[in-house]
Amino acid sequence: MYLGVDLGGTGIKIGLVDENGSILHKDSCPTQAMEDYKIIVKDMASLIKKILNDTDTNTMEIKAIGIGCPGSIDDKNGVVLYANNLNLHNAPLSCELKKYFDIPVYVGNDANCAALGEFFALNDENITDIVAITLGTGVGGGIIINKKIFTGTNGIAGELGHTVINVGGEKCSCGRNGCWEAYASATALIRDTEKAAKENPDSYVAKLVAENGGKASGEISFNAAKAGDETGKKLVENYVIYVAEGIVNIVNIFQPHAVVIGGGVSNAGDALLTPVKEYVKKNAYGGALQTKISIAKLGNDAGIIGAAFLGK
Amino acid sequence: MYLGVDLGGTGIKIGLVDENGSILHKDSCPTQAMEDYKIIVKDMASLIKKILNDTDTNTMEIKAIGIGCPGSIDDKNGVVLYANNLNLHNAPLSCELKKYFDIPVYVGNDANCAALGEFFALNDENITDIVAITLGTGVGGGIIINKKIFTGTNGIAGELGHTVINVGGEKCSCGRNGCWEAYASATALIRDTEKAAKENPDSYVAKLVAENGGKASGEISFNAAKAGDETGKKLVENYVIYVAEGIVNIVNIFQPHAVVIGGGVSNAGDALLTPVKEYVKKNAYGGALQTKISIAKLGNDAGIIGAAFLGK
Repeated sequence: MYLGVDLGGTGIKIGLVDENGSILHKDSCPTQAMEDYKIIVKDMASLIKKILNDTDTNTMEIKAIGIGCPGSIDDKNGVVLYANNLNLHNAPLSCELKKYFDIPVYVGNDANCAALGEFFALNDENITDIVAITLGTGVGGGIIINKKIFTGTNGIAGELGHTVINVGGEKCSCGRNGCWEAYASATALIRDTEKAAKENPDSYVAKLVAENGGKASGEISFNAAKAGDETGKKLVENYVIYVAEGIVNIVNIFQPHAVVIGGGVSNAGDALLTPVKEYVKKNAYGGALQTKISIAKLGNDAGIIGAAFLGK
Repeated sequence: MYLGVDLGGTGIKIGLVDENGSILHKDSCPTQAMEDYKIIVKDMASLIKKILNDTDTNTMEIKAIGIGCPGSIDDKNGVVLYANNLNLHNAPLSCELKKYFDIPVYVGNDANCAALGEFFALNDENITDIVAITLGTGVGGGIIINKKIFTGTNGIAGELGHTVINVGGEKCSCGRNGCWEAYASATALIRDTEKAAKENPDSYVAKLVAENGGKASGEISFNAAKAGDETGKKLVENYVIYVAEGIVNIVNIFQPHAVVIGGGVSNAGDALLTPVKEYVKKNAYGGALQTKISIAKLGNDAGIIGAAFLGK
């Protein structure tokens, strides 16, 4: 068995995970995000002890503990170099947690852990390379090559959301203009939905935005499109192009066995997946697309399961 | 010693390469491009025999033969799946050449071989990951991860020139719109130079184009900029942005130790390199750029040396 820790800005979620990637037991506690890393690791250790106690598990049964954390990670040494929504700078989480347990501890970037979780969830021995993307507040990416997370020479590779698809385009949170994230994130879809609602006050999109207190959400465009609204259909059509263009780039660069789409917007399911697949198939270099495109399976558990399997 | 074969649409160039990557002897013959692969390999074998004879080298001294070839390659089996400027379809070059010599034979994509050549030319044991790009008729890319060429799950990964940097933009030879190649290739620079000459008939750019028989070349914009011409300066400024935006994407995805720029346009040297470096440094994700950017060292020999080292 393994322990997977999903360390976020608001909470620490920990799961006891079996060899097959099933979560046997899960618990959580708040993150004291502004405290020193030693306090955070102390809380983590207490929660692990509680889980071991509650499930009547001996530490001898745990093969490894994995911690998924946002930010830049030195995965070779288990050190969080920098995490912008936690007060972590060069924090040796691995060393610190080993003070509590005589178990190997691994640390990885949370988006990469989620990708590793989705990789194992595919459960196909012919699949060795995947790219997992999350369409949420931002656009996250995790690259698995030869069954391992690819982190580049310094641990921070794989920032697929921060590759420009439109030079000089929409402002991105990273400071560049025209990043994929500035077009394919839920945030971007919400921005475009609000704009479309203003420009088309008689549309069903505008009605749904008004009903939602004047605020757009990631679902509104898909719901309006489903109801046959032209403004909604146009919004989804454009959004699909942005998502798919980025995926074609990924295919042309990596030729992975699979691209897995997760994050809030992926809840749209086939309404997103079907047109994205068609677009990618039509535009991938060389014509014969060998990459399977699918919706992520694990939802919010991907981080816990992937972190657990850092040591697999 | 190794033998490196650069198999192109017009010629077969073969070099005898030592352990340090120096070409000891080089020879070439025309490619009978429309003939069956067996004819091409027969010519290749004859030229290898001539080189061995001319240099008084015994086949026992050759550790491996590597063939670099344009197109899609099954590098595991040494088969050219498809090469658009040669009549090769599922051509087992490795097996065929082994009929002539009892030496291991490897086959790789030519752009990837050039990247491998440039990787060895860096001659720095701390460098394991590089991306080499060529700014020529198209934009080629070769990715080296852990000292090996990265070819994805099907041998055709690394098509960096065919990643979109401008959704819906300039038409690309691959069928998509807005590919990096459609902005950063020599072909694109020539297109933009001809356009600028027409729009600015009094510019020095226009004068140079006229002197060149009405045709632009890759050097004209750089030469005009050097002479202080505003049209030339603007052309170079824009071109630098296109090249650099693609390199920032590469850095954000791969975080390689180095990006090496080759191809015809790289002859511009510091006039290209200096502003590209500045732009990438300013825009790379996370601020602290750890990737060195340099001009390729090997020129046209990169393909021969890289092919030779496929078996190293």
